[in-house]
Amino acid sequence: MRNFEYCTPTRLIFGKGVVEKLPSVLAPIGKKVLFTYGGGSIKKNGLYEKVIKLLDGFEVFELSGIEPNPKYSTSVLDGVRICKENDIDVILAVGGGSVVDCSKAIAAGAKYDGEPWDLITHKVPTEAALPVVDIITMAATGSEYDPGGVISRPETNDKVGYIDKHLYPVASFVDPTYTFSVPKLQMAAGVADAMNHVMEQYFNSDPHDFADGMMEASLKSLIKNVKIALENPEDYNARAEIFLNCTLDCNNILSIGEAPSGWPMHGMEHALSAYYDITHGIGLAILAPRWMKHILSEKTAPRIAKYGINVFGVDKNLSVTDAAEKAIEETFSFFESIGIPMYLKDVGIDETRLAEMAHHVAENEGLDNPYVYVPLTENDILEIFKASL
Amino acid sequence: MRNFEYCTPTRLIFGKGVVEKLPSVLAPIGKKVLFTYGGGSIKKNGLYEKVIKLLDGFEVFELSGIEPNPKYSTSVLDGVRICKENDIDVILAVGGGSVVDCSKAIAAGAKYDGEPWDLITHKVPTEAALPVVDIITMAATGSEYDPGGVISRPETNDKVGYIDKHLYPVASFVDPTYTFSVPKLQMAAGVADAMNHVMEQYFNSDPHDFADGMMEASLKSLIKNVKIALENPEDYNARAEIFLNCTLDCNNILSIGEAPSGWPMHGMEHALSAYYDITHGIGLAILAPRWMKHILSEKTAPRIAKYGINVFGVDKNLSVTDAAEKAIEETFSFFESIGIPMYLKDVGIDETRLAEMAHHVAENEGLDNPYVYVPLTENDILEIFKASL
Repeated sequence: MRNFEYCTPTRLIFGKGVVEKLPSVLAPIGKKVLFTYGGGSIKKNGLYEKVIKLLDGFEVFELSGIEPNPKYSTSVLDGVRICKENDIDVILAVGGGSVVDCSKAIAAGAKYDGEPWDLITHKVPTEAALPVVDIITMAATGSEYDPGGVISRPETNDKVGYIDKHLYPVASFVDPTYTFSVPKLQMAAGVADAMNHVMEQYFNSDPHDFADGMMEASLKSLIKNVKIALENPEDYNARAEIFLNCTLDCNNILSIGEAPSGWPMHGMEHALSAYYDITHGIGLAILAPRWMKHILSEKTAPRIAKYGINVFGVDKNLSVTDAAEKAIEETFSFFESIGIPMYLKDVGIDETRLAEMAHHVAENEGLDNPYVYVPLTENDILEIFKASL
Repeated sequence: MRNFEYCTPTRLIFGKGVVEKLPSVLAPIGKKVLFTYGGGSIKKNGLYEKVIKLLDGFEVFELSGIEPNPKYSTSVLDGVRICKENDIDVILAVGGGSVVDCSKAIAAGAKYDGEPWDLITHKVPTEAALPVVDIITMAATGSEYDPGGVISRPETNDKVGYIDKHLYPVASFVDPTYTFSVPKLQMAAGVADAMNHVMEQYFNSDPHDFADGMMEASLKSLIKNVKIALENPEDYNARAEIFLNCTLDCNNILSIGEAPSGWPMHGMEHALSAYYDITHGIGLAILAPRWMKHILSEKTAPRIAKYGINVFGVDKNLSVTDAAEKAIEETFSFFESIGIPMYLKDVGIDETRLAEMAHHVAENEGLDNPYVYVPLTENDILEIFKASL
């Protein structure tokens, strides 16, 4: 087992109706609130109005229109400006992972005198951030319980993972009933995202039984409950399990003490959604089985086989290679069975820019580092992209 | 799934050699340190000297002689007095769970003007506590990562579980190599304690797949790794898995969103070790299979069977009742196989005081409350004690 330090200071407030506690959580933090959100969905479903009522007595500023892949030059910089001009005490992010991610970058930028991009790209260490409280409405990224976010800068085709311990939300409200109305494809993409978060951690070079078992439990729970929620979108327990998994999956608690893995599927996917603005979870689902197939070797087969046996019930009497191959097939079939388009061409990506994207990933994502589970060269990345067409 | 709030603010610093970081962790908290420990074991194994060296530059006070079941009238009150007289900034607990438990009670008592027993018994709410940092040397209670402790008052035969959110340690250092020299029976008792922590949570009336899977993973990891560590006490990975399980097992993260269960085995065991000062984990191991057998019914059989199938590999083709009975047998045999004496008479307890203890438990532990998985009357408790003779 690897040495580690682990601490998640976020107060997780989970369940039906928990958002009513918002004023009592915000009050000790401050009076001046920047309320951030995305498009109009929280206005349509009544959450906007509910939050405004709960914020009665606070001084509220708003930043709306945060994009699904939040943009540096608009949302982040706008938010930083509002915080600085109005001496904001706390950011309240209401929406999906993108709103939370963006709010974290704003929170750090608001406490920094220079160009916030330098914090996001880790050129300058983050020394402080405004407190972020969130009401997360989408089960997917786990931003409500992790110290990171992903920020895009389309001008330069950059999509950067910004991670720092100052970015843990102070408190996260999770009410699974908010996800009852999430469209099926979006739910499936969220589950694929969460499963990928687990798989990125699972495939590492120094596993142990306890963490493996926790990760396998998460994957099995997601696989079972997404099917239930697709059948009956208002099944509370299924929605709650999906959300709880998403919340914990990106936090490292499930892989605690295992080796870092380099998150290769995320490194590759960031290019897909930076260049083509596709849904992150769909990009990950498409890449996952192709990546596994590409890295399958005598060395990796036992681990891929273990995953298949314990997660998908692959027959443990098969040879290790056969079990690993079966695990890869099951991964593909499962994602397909929940309605995810499983070829790049299905989401509007053809071969035109594959080489350019592979080059960008190789230059920027560090997937050739020795700590990556199986280090990937530019050519490996290109082959994985091609196999995903 | 139940609504819940979850937050563990403890900084967990885990692995070989991590204690070297002690000065950098303590320095921002304060200068005046109360160093608490138990008997002479940390003097024998060199840890005392190492800590004293690491505390160079701090102003150090000492409280030694904390008992295995820490006593209110001596250790707790002595510690509170030292803290108040010397304006202590931080308590550094070095040793097993008892030292950490005791230090938490001292930390709260030091910030309270009245009788600390009123805090411990929850008669008065805990409003503050000194920061506690610990170096935990025994894998068992999980006190290093939970908000509670158990304090004994032999004058009144009381053994009270004190739980409050102010009692989370600020930082916990866990170096599994410190457990290499723990005697086999003590290690086995620690593992039984940790397994019981999981079982207390597992047997509840509102389970879900994800948490169940995490708890099953923990139990399986403990079962496998204690066997390895009994064979080879210096197997680092086995010791590390055991310790990591013990650390997380008492923290509620593994049963997150499931129902409270009342911790009936702990309620009963507290009487055994309060009246007879036996090892807590041994008491729990003796009670567990007798408790399961006592509560076995049409209603509980499916859950006991699920536990047996997923943890001990009980044949899933058996009838539910047969699988549950087999699960209970496996539990007994497993504890016996790791060297735990499995009858009360083996640990010096005969029938003399069983009725008195059952009465004490019924009066003080609230095991007849409706939220207890299967509520227990005084007579139920007495029957379980008798079956354990």
